[in-house]
Amino acid sequence: MAFNLSEAEAQLHRTPGVLRAWFQGLPEPWLSADEGPETFSARDVLAHLIFGERTDWMVRARLILEHGEGEAFEPFDRVGFLEEARSWSLGALLDEFERLRGENLRALGSLGLQASDLERRGRHPGLGSVTLEQLLASWVVHDLGHLAQVARVMAKRYQSEVGPWVDYLPVLTRK
Amino acid sequence: MAFNLSEAEAQLHRTPGVLRAWFQGLPEPWLSADEGPETFSARDVLAHLIFGERTDWMVRARLILEHGEGEAFEPFDRVGFLEEARSWSLGALLDEFERLRGENLRALGSLGLQASDLERRGRHPGLGSVTLEQLLASWVVHDLGHLAQVARVMAKRYQSEVGPWVDYLPVLTRK
Repeated sequence: MAFNLSEAEAQLHRTPGVLRAWFQGLPEPWLSADEGPETFSARDVLAHLIFGERTDWMVRARLILEHGEGEAFEPFDRVGFLEEARSWSLGALLDEFERLRGENLRALGSLGLQASDLERRGRHPGLGSVTLEQLLASWVVHDLGHLAQVARVMAKRYQSEVGPWVDYLPVLTRK
Repeated sequence: MAFNLSEAEAQLHRTPGVLRAWFQGLPEPWLSADEGPETFSARDVLAHLIFGERTDWMVRARLILEHGEGEAFEPFDRVGFLEEARSWSLGALLDEFERLRGENLRALGSLGLQASDLERRGRHPGLGSVTLEQLLASWVVHDLGHLAQVARVMAKRYQSEVGPWVDYLPVLTRK
């Protein structure tokens, strides 16, 4: 088993700083490019991550600890906050994500979870019975998946600009 | 045409800081995980990016400006420096990448490239005739592709740990 709570926390802790180092001051075309209708830009990803901090991960962790499988998680709205975020500045979004992630990691730490707690179960509205460990591992992978998405979406701005190099750059042809 | 030199430079400028924010102090298992034999870990990606700064991008840009298609680029060794980098500390690798990238971007800026220069051609040993713009666009996409790779490689550590969430996390099943 690869899951380790402090390693997971270390990864989760870094995401706001990675996005700040990447997005702050970056020319707007990099931030607003997407892969077509109904797809996320880098800025949308940031808004989506903020919404996850507010309504998803730690909310569900607490539900598992308090109600077990007795009460299913609220379905997560993957486009929640996206519209509203369009009126926020990039700096405000970066600050908000950092603040919420910090708050959630402090809350997670204060739970003092033991190995046995990680096996406690809750009920996902679509996936059924899941453990707290699976939830926390998914939180980490969700961050990483969106970091990969941001890199891919930005890369595709230069899909034709690389000319024949397209054959050596698989990121340009991924979905 | 999406290519814009100052936007490309802004993206290239950020990669060392993104990797520093991500890797510095991160527990070793995240940095050394790979996707199996002959695949890159996060640390290998950093070494590979350093080697690109030393032997690939700006070396080729200068060759285009000085010799055009008359002299083909040296083939790039994609595993160059990987063995040697194993004896370097992570901090030394991060410093070296930042130093070389900064040096290369200053050199690029000092060329004072005009739009017409971007159409100048060189000769790639495998791809044939390529333009300076295609080379510079590929430099950017190469960075972004490796950022996506790092996120994917790290995510896969938790491939089974996420349990049923694997269906919602496509980064876990990408090659």
